[in-house]
Amino acid sequence: MRATVIYGERDIRSEQVPDPVLSGEGKDAIVRVSAACVCGSDLWPYRGVTHPKMPKRIGHEFVGVVEEVASGVTRVKPGDLVIAPFYDCCGECVNCRNGFTTSCLEIGWFGGVDHWGHAVDGAQGELVRVPHADGALTVVPGGADADLLPHLLTLSDVFLTGHHAAVSAGVRKGSTVAVVGDGAVGLSAVLAAHRLGAERIVAMSRHASRQEVAREFGATDVVAERGDEGIAILKDMFDGVGPDAVLECVGTKESMDQALRSARPGGQVGFVGVPNGGPELPMRTMFDTNVGVRGGVAPVRSYVDEILPEVLDGSLRPGRVFDQTFALADAASAYAAMDERRAIKSLLLP
Amino acid sequence: MRATVIYGERDIRSEQVPDPVLSGEGKDAIVRVSAACVCGSDLWPYRGVTHPKMPKRIGHEFVGVVEEVASGVTRVKPGDLVIAPFYDCCGECVNCRNGFTTSCLEIGWFGGVDHWGHAVDGAQGELVRVPHADGALTVVPGGADADLLPHLLTLSDVFLTGHHAAVSAGVRKGSTVAVVGDGAVGLSAVLAAHRLGAERIVAMSRHASRQEVAREFGATDVVAERGDEGIAILKDMFDGVGPDAVLECVGTKESMDQALRSARPGGQVGFVGVPNGGPELPMRTMFDTNVGVRGGVAPVRSYVDEILPEVLDGSLRPGRVFDQTFALADAASAYAAMDERRAIKSLLLP
Repeated sequence: MRATVIYGERDIRSEQVPDPVLSGEGKDAIVRVSAACVCGSDLWPYRGVTHPKMPKRIGHEFVGVVEEVASGVTRVKPGDLVIAPFYDCCGECVNCRNGFTTSCLEIGWFGGVDHWGHAVDGAQGELVRVPHADGALTVVPGGADADLLPHLLTLSDVFLTGHHAAVSAGVRKGSTVAVVGDGAVGLSAVLAAHRLGAERIVAMSRHASRQEVAREFGATDVVAERGDEGIAILKDMFDGVGPDAVLECVGTKESMDQALRSARPGGQVGFVGVPNGGPELPMRTMFDTNVGVRGGVAPVRSYVDEILPEVLDGSLRPGRVFDQTFALADAASAYAAMDERRAIKSLLLP
Repeated sequence: MRATVIYGERDIRSEQVPDPVLSGEGKDAIVRVSAACVCGSDLWPYRGVTHPKMPKRIGHEFVGVVEEVASGVTRVKPGDLVIAPFYDCCGECVNCRNGFTTSCLEIGWFGGVDHWGHAVDGAQGELVRVPHADGALTVVPGGADADLLPHLLTLSDVFLTGHHAAVSAGVRKGSTVAVVGDGAVGLSAVLAAHRLGAERIVAMSRHASRQEVAREFGATDVVAERGDEGIAILKDMFDGVGPDAVLECVGTKESMDQALRSARPGGQVGFVGVPNGGPELPMRTMFDTNVGVRGGVAPVRSYVDEILPEVLDGSLRPGRVFDQTFALADAASAYAAMDERRAIKSLLLP
């Protein structure tokens, strides 16, 4: 089958690799990918910011159709259209039951290994083995038309990661919100805050195309300034003290610093940007201001069941973050488009 | 009048100082102190851990009777028994309205200065000037018998600081909770968690007398071990993953580290220990585990109205943390008793 492999900095190749096979653990399924995509975090090894052992398979977001299931799989069957979270989880352990499926006691990672040490395929390929099919996969009842696929695909990671930022920051009806980061996750966080009833949502963005999506997603205001200047503008907009919630969707030292300093006293930062080399949080600042910090790797599987109906009935259209589509065989171009910020997020179709 | 002055490490003196006078700003009151006490944070300059400019007046917790009010004061009148928060606040600004009176835009500090730069007395004295009498003081309707004073005094800081830890950690009916720190704040946090309906409360304590108070306050379990060993025991007690909420009531690097590593994935640390020289919070750990951190300087004034009725009707008895009583003139002994851990918390009576 065809799959995407990263060989090094800005070296993405589409290659023939062996088809996955069931592991023998009895809980897995093989899924034929209908749609996948490139994540902002995929750009890190691509840009040489992180240095995993390469060459390696890559990609962790996909929807697809089940081809084959192991003997112990009961909820998922061949022919089902399924949404995969960006990780594998059992759905049964205490952390899964608590709604933190990203801390599953049998966690596995696409493009890495499963709980038992078997290899797991990256999602940017034709076929993917899912180690806990019953626990990880969500069946889309009755399947879906092709035009729904991009929206469903956002439930694999990007929209629900934005949602996690909003939930972690305690966004609710009437909240005032600022979103730091105008990538696909930041834009998704705008939409998620809007869906949760935020009264005013400020997108921090300096790119016209992204500002446009932010407004479509419910942003009431756009602020292009960053750092001290951006913070001063935000404070001015909200009684001189800042908004209730700040959603940090980048993961750099600068973005977290901006988020922490923007929230009003007693406000909350919800963060989903993968912390990339810093910073550590300043306790004394948090103590003095009572600004809380909560978030992390988004337990998207725990949110799918709540959100899926709104995607299926068309009331929620998070797939708008995909503004360019590429053939799986041309993954290199999909990466380059995002790297050069020509694309917000690249969709990959087989 | 008599007041307590700190001159240096382990040098506390009770001295004659000038009586306070109204400032001319028109919002203040002079209060005759009925009861005050020593805070764990007062021990820091006492122990030479922090080095404020000395000699200085000290103390920030008191209840008392209003003697005199300025022309602009309308809610508080001479003869009223009042509870002061450990800080001064206006009660009207956006942060006060948001429930974060510790971030009042006109904040002042007992033993420091008020918003206008006038000196404010320390609470361990016979008289204290309160800069925003209407905003800061809570009138106890009908006054109170002397045996209620210790309980009312805890609403000045210690009980409501423990309450803030529990609220910040999201403790609710059915929560599982661990409390790090068995000082008066930690014990108060146990009582606050119990009051909020926590199902199981573990007090981390190695002192028999404090364990006893913890059990009276609602602790269901006591763990004496600390560090890795304490964390392992806690995790074992709660499904192998740890409790929902951990209340950090110390403020050291070790206590915060223990709190962060004890909470279950997706759990929350509520912290009220004044961070004393570190640590900064490890973002990557928080990201991986989704453990949130929230808390800080407790906005006690914002909580008093909710809690006071339960103290007045006797259903809540937080004053149990005072296990030794001293005359104001003997404040030095009150400090020594806490410093040497002979007292949990020292009450000072004029």
